[in-house]
Amino acid sequence: MSSAALLAIGDELIAGRVREGNFPPLIAALGAHGWRVGAARLCADDAADIVDAIHDLCAHHNLVLTTGGLGPTEDDLTSAAIARAVGVEQRRDASAEAMIRAYFAAVGRTPSEVNLRQADLPIGAVALRNPCGTAPGFVLPYGSSQIVVLPGVPREVLAIAETSLQDWLAAHEGTAPRRMSRTLSVAGLPEAALGEQLRDLMQRGGPVLIGSYPGAGEVRLHLEADAAHADALESVAREVESRLGAHVVSRSGASLEAVVVQRLRERGAQLAVAESLTGGLVMARLIAIPGASVCCRGGVVAYDDAMKVSLLGVDASLLQREGAVCEAVAVAMAEGLRLRLGTEFALATTGVAGPGADERGNPAGRVFVALATGSGTQARALSIPGSRLDVRERSASAALDLLRRALG
Amino acid sequence: MSSAALLAIGDELIAGRVREGNFPPLIAALGAHGWRVGAARLCADDAADIVDAIHDLCAHHNLVLTTGGLGPTEDDLTSAAIARAVGVEQRRDASAEAMIRAYFAAVGRTPSEVNLRQADLPIGAVALRNPCGTAPGFVLPYGSSQIVVLPGVPREVLAIAETSLQDWLAAHEGTAPRRMSRTLSVAGLPEAALGEQLRDLMQRGGPVLIGSYPGAGEVRLHLEADAAHADALESVAREVESRLGAHVVSRSGASLEAVVVQRLRERGAQLAVAESLTGGLVMARLIAIPGASVCCRGGVVAYDDAMKVSLLGVDASLLQREGAVCEAVAVAMAEGLRLRLGTEFALATTGVAGPGADERGNPAGRVFVALATGSGTQARALSIPGSRLDVRERSASAALDLLRRALG
Repeated sequence: MSSAALLAIGDELIAGRVREGNFPPLIAALGAHGWRVGAARLCADDAADIVDAIHDLCAHHNLVLTTGGLGPTEDDLTSAAIARAVGVEQRRDASAEAMIRAYFAAVGRTPSEVNLRQADLPIGAVALRNPCGTAPGFVLPYGSSQIVVLPGVPREVLAIAETSLQDWLAAHEGTAPRRMSRTLSVAGLPEAALGEQLRDLMQRGGPVLIGSYPGAGEVRLHLEADAAHADALESVAREVESRLGAHVVSRSGASLEAVVVQRLRERGAQLAVAESLTGGLVMARLIAIPGASVCCRGGVVAYDDAMKVSLLGVDASLLQREGAVCEAVAVAMAEGLRLRLGTEFALATTGVAGPGADERGNPAGRVFVALATGSGTQARALSIPGSRLDVRERSASAALDLLRRALG
Repeated sequence: MSSAALLAIGDELIAGRVREGNFPPLIAALGAHGWRVGAARLCADDAADIVDAIHDLCAHHNLVLTTGGLGPTEDDLTSAAIARAVGVEQRRDASAEAMIRAYFAAVGRTPSEVNLRQADLPIGAVALRNPCGTAPGFVLPYGSSQIVVLPGVPREVLAIAETSLQDWLAAHEGTAPRRMSRTLSVAGLPEAALGEQLRDLMQRGGPVLIGSYPGAGEVRLHLEADAAHADALESVAREVESRLGAHVVSRSGASLEAVVVQRLRERGAQLAVAESLTGGLVMARLIAIPGASVCCRGGVVAYDDAMKVSLLGVDASLLQREGAVCEAVAVAMAEGLRLRLGTEFALATTGVAGPGADERGNPAGRVFVALATGSGTQARALSIPGSRLDVRERSASAALDLLRRALG
């Protein structure tokens, strides 16, 4: 039996203030090492609840993984509750203490006694290094089960899953059938239209499961099968790609911005971005990609008309006559910035994020994006439903997608 | 006892392909009617797992609410499994059938036999109308518990929660004490230092629970108590505020950027932002706040040195001599942009996002933020641990916090 269970610990989860988000990456990490997750629970920061859940889950699963409640404050009870569930004391663990000291040393600080309290582990536990937080995780055997205890901060969970937990799992492989998966990233197609095009493939029954997960202007398609059906997985993936054509951003799950940065680097080309309603979002998404500094020179957030004139060289009389929300202004912004910075490509966005219409009566969601290149400028008009945030994120995606398609 | 439990049923949840998202709104709906959620679980579309979970949860809670697995296909097992758990047969329910027929009639269609199968309910169940989907929910008594069974599609869950479930809960109020809460937002203080300062208040036992939830450069403190202890809640909140002083960003949970936008608007002041390593993130966070357009004029993302010179007027010889990562450059960026755009305030960021050191040997996480105002310029040097994303987000928070404090 290689059955795993997850337990997310936190008042904020059980009170509905925070949405649980660590399960999906942990399930993927476990699955890659032959562990199938059979149960997942949330529980409060309550010692009795944690003890009960640990006893119950360890009776049915031989790997139990918890998240949350390892912080330095008084509401963090997990380590003590796990010790109680297993029937051991806690004591200062030298290896965990060394990890905490090293983490602080790396940032030129010294841990306080409160920080070091995070090294008080149940006796018999082995510390797991946390590359981006102060609380180490740990692994504790209990009967025929292993309990893996992690902090709850999502970025710390991800970092541990990729490093110390990964190493531990590699040394403790399960025997559940390996699953294989492929993730495709798709842009420029609403989820309903996507569902329509793939309806027959998405029906259950076959060996390949397909799930679609919409983001802001980008949909991720997840294809999954037992490793024994690798051929079926590949052939369904090829069928999906052939039906969706140029809407497929990547066959690796890489995002729009990652694909754009990669293609710019391959060409040795440089990009600048002039943003109005997206207010820096296009550039922020690009710069989040490692290596973006080579090809993204920078940009201007010209949120008001005077800045569009002074920083981008947009014609003041055009703004006066047509207002800022029109195709001609998007084109002028992109061309103006391209000229000023001498880059091969320049993107621009202008539009109404909402919630209401603008003073000229342009409705929320009316957006223009433009791309200026050495061989001419193209623009797209969009009408985007949803909240202010939706409109801004989808506008940023539309601009990035315009460039992606131009980069071939 | 008015203790409720949630059970989300679905292979896609337990396989990590879809993130559970129905719990928060259901917890809120239950809480508003005197039901406190004490447990929440995910389980697969597996009849034995569902039966076990129902038995276990009904033994400890007098209201058990399930989501998922009510669709018309073969892999939707919930209704049959609940019938089995309770020990009754299923049969076609006239009221549920009428709901399905009415739903189809409203869209000009006729239900197939497969659709009508969704009216096969456990004997003794009472149907709950689903205003935006084909599968009605239902309520089934079991011993001293009630089992409420809902579909899993989030928009259907929301619609049911606001209509038929709302009505059912109004007729079945729980007796859990109503809870009151306060959320404070805190910046400029690591979570451990915060824990140190509030240790006695955060110790369990009193009527006021305090939870701390770290974000990127900002910590949210959540204070909660039974409504009967409203005075204690207020007095603890006041004590927290007095201990944390200027670190308290807001007494309402409002974020750094929301507070900055509000204070700028109160003053009628305008802001511009010059960003290097944060690459547009400061501006994007500000512009996400409704009303930001009035006070945030725009900014420049000057990711490379030439742009710092041409768009911000930073002295090229300073960049040559000291490199871009130093206090003098942060100051020059802020002052240069303020001068060019004529705003009252200008923020600037420069630093090394990582993962590695820069070519001058500045380590990842070395960051300088600066604020230029009419009465002078101030800067802060930071040393930020974590990933590239952490460094950028915390740098953006540090810049916003510098402005927040200056705005008093």
